[in-house]
Amino acid sequence: MQIIGEKINGTRKRVAQAIMERDSAFIQDLAIRQAEAGAAWLDVNAGTHPNREPDDLIWLVETIQPVVKVPLCLDSANPQALAAAIQVVQQTPMINSISGEPSRLEGILPLVAKHSCPVIALAMDERGIPETCEQRMAVVHKVMEATRAAGVPDEKVYVDPLAMTLATNTQAALITLDTIHAIRREFPNVHLTIGLSNISFGLPARSYINRVFLTLALQAGLDSAIIDPLDREMKAVLIAAELVLGRDRHCLNYTRAYRAGVFGK
Amino acid sequence: MQIIGEKINGTRKRVAQAIMERDSAFIQDLAIRQAEAGAAWLDVNAGTHPNREPDDLIWLVETIQPVVKVPLCLDSANPQALAAAIQVVQQTPMINSISGEPSRLEGILPLVAKHSCPVIALAMDERGIPETCEQRMAVVHKVMEATRAAGVPDEKVYVDPLAMTLATNTQAALITLDTIHAIRREFPNVHLTIGLSNISFGLPARSYINRVFLTLALQAGLDSAIIDPLDREMKAVLIAAELVLGRDRHCLNYTRAYRAGVFGK
Repeated sequence: MQIIGEKINGTRKRVAQAIMERDSAFIQDLAIRQAEAGAAWLDVNAGTHPNREPDDLIWLVETIQPVVKVPLCLDSANPQALAAAIQVVQQTPMINSISGEPSRLEGILPLVAKHSCPVIALAMDERGIPETCEQRMAVVHKVMEATRAAGVPDEKVYVDPLAMTLATNTQAALITLDTIHAIRREFPNVHLTIGLSNISFGLPARSYINRVFLTLALQAGLDSAIIDPLDREMKAVLIAAELVLGRDRHCLNYTRAYRAGVFGK
Repeated sequence: MQIIGEKINGTRKRVAQAIMERDSAFIQDLAIRQAEAGAAWLDVNAGTHPNREPDDLIWLVETIQPVVKVPLCLDSANPQALAAAIQVVQQTPMINSISGEPSRLEGILPLVAKHSCPVIALAMDERGIPETCEQRMAVVHKVMEATRAAGVPDEKVYVDPLAMTLATNTQAALITLDTIHAIRREFPNVHLTIGLSNISFGLPARSYINRVFLTLALQAGLDSAIIDPLDREMKAVLIAAELVLGRDRHCLNYTRAYRAGVFGK
């Protein structure tokens, strides 16, 4: 299970402030702590106006990469910002994201192909996030046709089945889980990822919902997730779930995590 | 999801002491707190020597039933103890348990049939707990043939697929989950229950494993469990899991539990 660390995101107030003030220390601290907590990738989202996003994304990349060894996941819908940031990254970055939207396929997919980047592909298009599993799969098929036509191997695609909040549709998690199963069945070589916490948007005590959903998504076939690696409870559940799902030989990872204090007390 | 409260069990030291000393107040307090926490049944296990078990079980029943309204689950492998206790219960009790063992089928099943009791049926026989799902299902078929022959309707049978510890076999949870699926498929009208915490026997930080396993078992079709209703974290996960699994219309149960403080803070 690969964790894509979500914390360096300009839609978060404190991060936005750090970007505006060019507060390197704040951003570097977030990067170091996520890397130390085991993030395999660090998501980097400037979240600023398209006019200044290329500069901000470059600043973020140049601020982060001197202090950590993990690769970055450049997070933007803006091809200009991505193209600018790719010029300054030292390790091949993941690109977050393409989707069925023509503007993203035309603007971002060529960058992905040219630089041989892993890429997150969202199961949505210009009409938004489809309601049903079948409709999401129709979009996934369209996107996978495009990535294959562009020469991107399936192994580099991280399909995101998308999670909508349970607050407005109590079937939302089941739809996402069904979509994960369908992707695993129809595209056995892709990776699966998800912005996990959307599932609980607008509800109280969100972490309980997120942890249950992570457990079920892992069983369904999720092999990476965009989460907060500093959330100790989430990580504990992740490690326990891998044990329960028979993926931890001799319970080694679990007992090692226990000794490292992941489970508290 | 029905909770069978597990706390009144003579194999626990403090409970054994209370039974020996006829400490009614201690037992009644355990009963009241479990009932208040939402237990649908209270398991009652004397855990004493067969010679004295009938008297102890009668004492427990007569101590508990004046203070709670929930029905009891008489827990013994001893037909004499069960027959004695059935004489003094006021509400039809659940019987815990029969299995493929001839002594239990011959000694306990007639009592179950005669008193129209719900009954827990373990997926094991005189040779012990079978290793594989297929072997456990063979035992379940044998037991279900016997309950049907005795005139016990499937709706009164709570099949326990059994959980072995992950400490000695990391596939143990998957075997149990497969067995739950198979029982649901082949006997659609039975209930399913489980002594949940066996899954983590001998491992540290057991509650994490138990909660993950509960989530996955609920999804597979578990509709009751023998657990500690006073374990607030377990209950929180149970309620969150029912929401995520699409079984909580309008999130009503979840938001009600939140307001009642189940999720803490």
